[in-house]
Amino acid sequence: MDETLIPTFEGPVCPVPLQHEDQVMMGHGSGGRMTYELIQRVFLPHLSNQALQAGNDFGLVGLPEAAHLAGSLIISTDSHIVKPLFFPGGDIGRLAVCGTVNDVSMSGAIPLYLTAGFILEEGLSMKLLKRAIESIQAAAAEAGIQVVAGDTKVVEKGKGDGLFINTAGIGWLAEGMHIDGEQAKPGDVVLVSGTLGDHGIAVLAARGELGFDTDVQSDVAPLNHMIQDLLKAAPHTHVLRDPTRGGLATTLNEIAKQSGVCIWLEEDSLPVQPAVRAASEMLGFDPLYIANEGKLIVIVPAEEAGQALACLQQNQYGKNAARVGEVRSDPKGRVLLRTPIGGTRILDMLAGEMLPRIC
Amino acid sequence: MDETLIPTFEGPVCPVPLQHEDQVMMGHGSGGRMTYELIQRVFLPHLSNQALQAGNDFGLVGLPEAAHLAGSLIISTDSHIVKPLFFPGGDIGRLAVCGTVNDVSMSGAIPLYLTAGFILEEGLSMKLLKRAIESIQAAAAEAGIQVVAGDTKVVEKGKGDGLFINTAGIGWLAEGMHIDGEQAKPGDVVLVSGTLGDHGIAVLAARGELGFDTDVQSDVAPLNHMIQDLLKAAPHTHVLRDPTRGGLATTLNEIAKQSGVCIWLEEDSLPVQPAVRAASEMLGFDPLYIANEGKLIVIVPAEEAGQALACLQQNQYGKNAARVGEVRSDPKGRVLLRTPIGGTRILDMLAGEMLPRIC
Repeated sequence: MDETLIPTFEGPVCPVPLQHEDQVMMGHGSGGRMTYELIQRVFLPHLSNQALQAGNDFGLVGLPEAAHLAGSLIISTDSHIVKPLFFPGGDIGRLAVCGTVNDVSMSGAIPLYLTAGFILEEGLSMKLLKRAIESIQAAAAEAGIQVVAGDTKVVEKGKGDGLFINTAGIGWLAEGMHIDGEQAKPGDVVLVSGTLGDHGIAVLAARGELGFDTDVQSDVAPLNHMIQDLLKAAPHTHVLRDPTRGGLATTLNEIAKQSGVCIWLEEDSLPVQPAVRAASEMLGFDPLYIANEGKLIVIVPAEEAGQALACLQQNQYGKNAARVGEVRSDPKGRVLLRTPIGGTRILDMLAGEMLPRIC
Repeated sequence: MDETLIPTFEGPVCPVPLQHEDQVMMGHGSGGRMTYELIQRVFLPHLSNQALQAGNDFGLVGLPEAAHLAGSLIISTDSHIVKPLFFPGGDIGRLAVCGTVNDVSMSGAIPLYLTAGFILEEGLSMKLLKRAIESIQAAAAEAGIQVVAGDTKVVEKGKGDGLFINTAGIGWLAEGMHIDGEQAKPGDVVLVSGTLGDHGIAVLAARGELGFDTDVQSDVAPLNHMIQDLLKAAPHTHVLRDPTRGGLATTLNEIAKQSGVCIWLEEDSLPVQPAVRAASEMLGFDPLYIANEGKLIVIVPAEEAGQALACLQQNQYGKNAARVGEVRSDPKGRVLLRTPIGGTRILDMLAGEMLPRIC
């Protein structure tokens, strides 16, 4: 069982002993250490193959020879559970489309088709359901993909939570593309496409859990068009990944481990909105661990970093893109943060669950 | 909006006015009239395209020209919710694999890949979860498919129901295959691959809702290998479909409407186990409306019917296959049942929800 199996199941790599043997607990869904344990001990011993072992948020597969497929298929899935269903800047429908479109796109693939499975709780407002479906329609149109298969189930009141949406995505990857978490190389430059932590803070605010008002909007967005533009501007891009559950810090730790490199970040280059920074400080959060739903990490050879950054900044979802660090050889598997006063600290992955839970 | 849109969302075609505007109700998930309304009024106005409009339990799609794909991709999805999670003859894991493998296979495609999205309720027994995953592994191995992407979410106690599993399936369809619900032609023969109603009665019995003991086992099984054998024996097969929610009667009504034909059934040729018949009679059910999870309807030109039936009977999942009726021109869109005493009655689709709910 290889550590690199983990990220396909969207939990970070952080091996620790299994502490909770008997029952599923909330922490098993945190994206942190317990999620790792659950996947490592319960799922992967029974479900393992080359596509999963690659350790990305997507599976790369082929077709039988008779299909004559040039390139590969890219497949990904995500179940979407968010409270409230509607929040500033987005909703569960937009999240369900963008989350899967983005996971497929991180391979460099063109996302083409989605499936959508709806689990409705008895008593759900029909008006809310309609709004969520309208939002799916709008996000799918924006991303340029089609929902080609659907399913609807209804569970009794108290056996669900309003609305859960599972989406699976299928994309096509042209021949010769090798973008994944194992490709980061010493000397590469690390870019992020915009401000960090917006989604998590917007959702918390919508729950009324901040204790103060904020106008932070979720960043939830389909990034596939921006990525396709980027790959023209910087065709030798090594890694693309979206820092969702666990935030930038956890995602970069996954990449550092997959590629066997060190990622150095410059703390004062990391883009964070003042309102997100303020909210995070009051809650005791670090914005580097807060989920994003429309942000992109790009790891690219230094010679293409300039055109990559310029390309991102021209996109509506990349206006605040910034160069935030670089890849070095050692210490392998680590993410280090250089502070403005010249110190260096280890940025580990999310250890447990952040409270209050964000998503 | 076309009636034939409906079956892709796995609800029968039965147009009636919308009665419940404000809230989602249990009946919206019954597979009957209210499911139709929900899909027709809420989902399809916003989600519609060629793949959905074909009206099958799968979507048929292509790839960009640069992929040089010979044939097509077949995509399907299903969320699996069953109580209890384990029942005689199967469990939610086997159901989640087989349900989607079968939906993909009904196109004639070879199912290749699955995604699996798990929604776990806090407090779920880890032992049960492990058993369900072992069952997924076994069913996937039997079907010869790989789970290439997964996702796990945990919801708070009281916000889920133990375990929900969504699966999406991707298959490859060779060029020249045209098997779908629109292909039934007058003169065709109708076969079913075995006894009807086993799954529904087994699940009810496992809930202790029968009020008496029965040894009926669910028929949940992956039918892809049997279908591939069948298509060699009867290469001009017109329609394949699995009679799940709504049972044989509802599924045949969908096909009769899609193809614009009449389907005539001989009542005394319909295979039903004595124990299922007895349980159904005591509960006031008709086995023709009870869900199956490992049965196949085959509609085939008369000249290939003999070899098709022989092929099914040689398979472990088709031993009790039988010729049950034929396709005629009129009355179009109808399913008629000829009784042993020579009478004829209209077999309509499931109108509402059967109580107690089976799945």
